[in-house]
Amino acid sequence: MKVKATVAYDGSGFHGFAVNPGVRTVAGEIDAALSKITSAEVRSICAGRTDKGVHGSGQVVSFDLPDTADLERIERSLNRMCQPMIVVSDLTVVDQDFHARFSAAWRRYRYRVLHVPKPDPLRRGFVWHVPEPLDLDAMNIAANDLIGTHDFASFCRRPKVADGEPEVQLVREVLDAEWSVAVEDELVFWIRSTSFCHQMVRSIVGTTVDVGQGKIAANSMSAILQERDRFAAGQVAPPQGLTLFEVGY
Amino acid sequence: MKVKATVAYDGSGFHGFAVNPGVRTVAGEIDAALSKITSAEVRSICAGRTDKGVHGSGQVVSFDLPDTADLERIERSLNRMCQPMIVVSDLTVVDQDFHARFSAAWRRYRYRVLHVPKPDPLRRGFVWHVPEPLDLDAMNIAANDLIGTHDFASFCRRPKVADGEPEVQLVREVLDAEWSVAVEDELVFWIRSTSFCHQMVRSIVGTTVDVGQGKIAANSMSAILQERDRFAAGQVAPPQGLTLFEVGY
Repeated sequence: MKVKATVAYDGSGFHGFAVNPGVRTVAGEIDAALSKITSAEVRSICAGRTDKGVHGSGQVVSFDLPDTADLERIERSLNRMCQPMIVVSDLTVVDQDFHARFSAAWRRYRYRVLHVPKPDPLRRGFVWHVPEPLDLDAMNIAANDLIGTHDFASFCRRPKVADGEPEVQLVREVLDAEWSVAVEDELVFWIRSTSFCHQMVRSIVGTTVDVGQGKIAANSMSAILQERDRFAAGQVAPPQGLTLFEVGY
Repeated sequence: MKVKATVAYDGSGFHGFAVNPGVRTVAGEIDAALSKITSAEVRSICAGRTDKGVHGSGQVVSFDLPDTADLERIERSLNRMCQPMIVVSDLTVVDQDFHARFSAAWRRYRYRVLHVPKPDPLRRGFVWHVPEPLDLDAMNIAANDLIGTHDFASFCRRPKVADGEPEVQLVREVLDAEWSVAVEDELVFWIRSTSFCHQMVRSIVGTTVDVGQGKIAANSMSAILQERDRFAAGQVAPPQGLTLFEVGY
């Protein structure tokens, strides 16, 4: 039977989500635990392969289990083996054709910026510290111009393509994107898109922060999109501020 | 000259604040860095010696420096050596008789409780996860009865006293103490006292959480105080939820 589950994880302890032989990854831990519990090789599929250092709060995975599997027992065993860095919850049986990645309608990411003069040791693993003044209105003019269907090549790490293979499609539909003040000393960026290409959120965050610092003009997003060139955009924000927050189906 | 500074630190990486030979402590790192920078032996004094795993946000230290010392340069060097786990700020020259501990009028601590069914990997180092229902009103009836001047022996780890030495005084004046809802899924406890004895905040937090779970009656704090016995109170809350937030002079 096909099973769906929600996964939360502290990305600082892992070399990213996807299985990667020789290094510790979130999916590597989950698959190893599931395989041990069920005495069968289990390979999970995730909604979004987050990079090294990026966190997950509402990541979704799907995998196959024997029809006789006791989901409550498996959830308990999984958490006993994976906590405290990974917490798996809400194991539920879904249609056999459910696919955590291809069935997803949208993904929502959150990015936290600590916006005070001094860094905070208590939040160092979860925010990007930007001490410089930031023009929030300018950042939102830029963010707003990214909403809609565009070719995001300027905001993505271009995937390697073998000779003769077709170029990878980087057209994505951003549904909403907005900076706001979260708590007194933190800004937060929420972005939701049908899907994201590699480093797209961190590149949009870094570029809109460049706009906030006056390094890039607020009204230049259309021109940057049209370039279809990674070097037309601004900096790439560091991974620790980013969390895959929710996946919609 | 006497210098005062504010110290923030992620307690999870240290065996407490106070210097303790052979283990990594916050004061150990700061004193070593200051001694190296000034080529002299510097020993700092702190407002509150926090336990292993307890965090600091507004800890205060004082120490002597040569009169010729350049405070801006020392602050920069200190942070270069101590970050990201420790951030030292606001180095200022104070009266020669200033003493971070004895000059302090009060200390304020914060305690965070994650109050949802599932643990959160992203906050695991900074909250106590209490999934059971909690009666916030009952917790505040209990907390309120601790305000004022009392002998807090029931809420303290009694210090070891050598034969023939007088018993250590555990009378303290709590100025305010209150539980509230911080964000959707978090409760926060703020407590301010002229000073605290060892494990007093964590013991008050654990006992009031026991009250919130119905294990201890809300109106029993006076009786517990009168016992002057550690075993009359409830559990001791774990260290990671606790932060020394502010010290008043």
